[in-house]
Amino acid sequence: MQRDSIRIIGIDPGLRRTGWGIIESDGVRLTYVASGHVSSPSGDALAYRLREIFEGISGVITTYSPREAAVEETFVNDNARATLKLGQARGMALLAPALRGLKVAEYPPNLVKKSVVGAGHAEKHQIKAMIGFLLPRARVESADEADALAIAICHANHRGAQVLAAKALAANALAKVGR
Amino acid sequence: MQRDSIRIIGIDPGLRRTGWGIIESDGVRLTYVASGHVSSPSGDALAYRLREIFEGISGVITTYSPREAAVEETFVNDNARATLKLGQARGMALLAPALRGLKVAEYPPNLVKKSVVGAGHAEKHQIKAMIGFLLPRARVESADEADALAIAICHANHRGAQVLAAKALAANALAKVGR
Repeated sequence: MQRDSIRIIGIDPGLRRTGWGIIESDGVRLTYVASGHVSSPSGDALAYRLREIFEGISGVITTYSPREAAVEETFVNDNARATLKLGQARGMALLAPALRGLKVAEYPPNLVKKSVVGAGHAEKHQIKAMIGFLLPRARVESADEADALAIAICHANHRGAQVLAAKALAANALAKVGR
Repeated sequence: MQRDSIRIIGIDPGLRRTGWGIIESDGVRLTYVASGHVSSPSGDALAYRLREIFEGISGVITTYSPREAAVEETFVNDNARATLKLGQARGMALLAPALRGLKVAEYPPNLVKKSVVGAGHAEKHQIKAMIGFLLPRARVESADEADALAIAICHANHRGAQVLAAKALAANALAKVGR
């Protein structure tokens, strides 16, 4: 059976470093395509650091042409200044794919961890180890890259469930009208 | 004496409504050019709401060609989720001018208020009233517009001080080398 394959970009936003990872999913198998991170020099003005992130992620989307995007839903609960910074970087991670018309999904951190490690709580090194297992061809150097790939895997798992649910609903509806 | 005039955009970011205001300053006098706000429909996906804000502000910059931008430095201290939302909207307000190569200044809220009302604490209606006084030709309907114009006025005042300080430094340096 020939399966439709979908290319997904996962993005782990941060003002200093934004990780990105591209995978392909045919609904059963996952394949590593590429990963890396975009840095923004801490000496630059904030607006220009954000521009670096935006242009970096836009460039990755141009190069690898993913069809869907996924971004983690994080916030730093106890530090408003850090949360604001993260929000600004996160805005870039959401805008870059939205400007290309990609579907952009968001997942809470515990669901991302559960998708790769099987538990809602996991250490950075556990995520990196599982990425090496799930995507054997991945060359992952940093935790940001591993996290970005984990987000992409989470989306591959959950979009599959959404597609199956939609198909089941459609089959049900057709059965009811007797076709 | 012919004075250089500079056109400034002030932006008051918010996920639901982002206010913008354009003024011109010749270092002494301020002139109202235009103001308004960009709304993002609350039913849309976050990434696409951010896109609305980004494209709205980018359009205003294309139409009015300001040379410098100013954005308020706000955060909501006691609510991480609200701060993250604001950060994302704020990212759009910083990115849009940075992508055009504009200088983007940031000012804390109490300095913005002080610039228009003369005190670090002021109510929304006081700011709106002072905008009507400082920019008699302004047609301001919403608080977001008034705030955006206040941010632009704050920048007009403080960039002037920066330019004078730079001129004084230069004059001093020239005097020292006997020219």
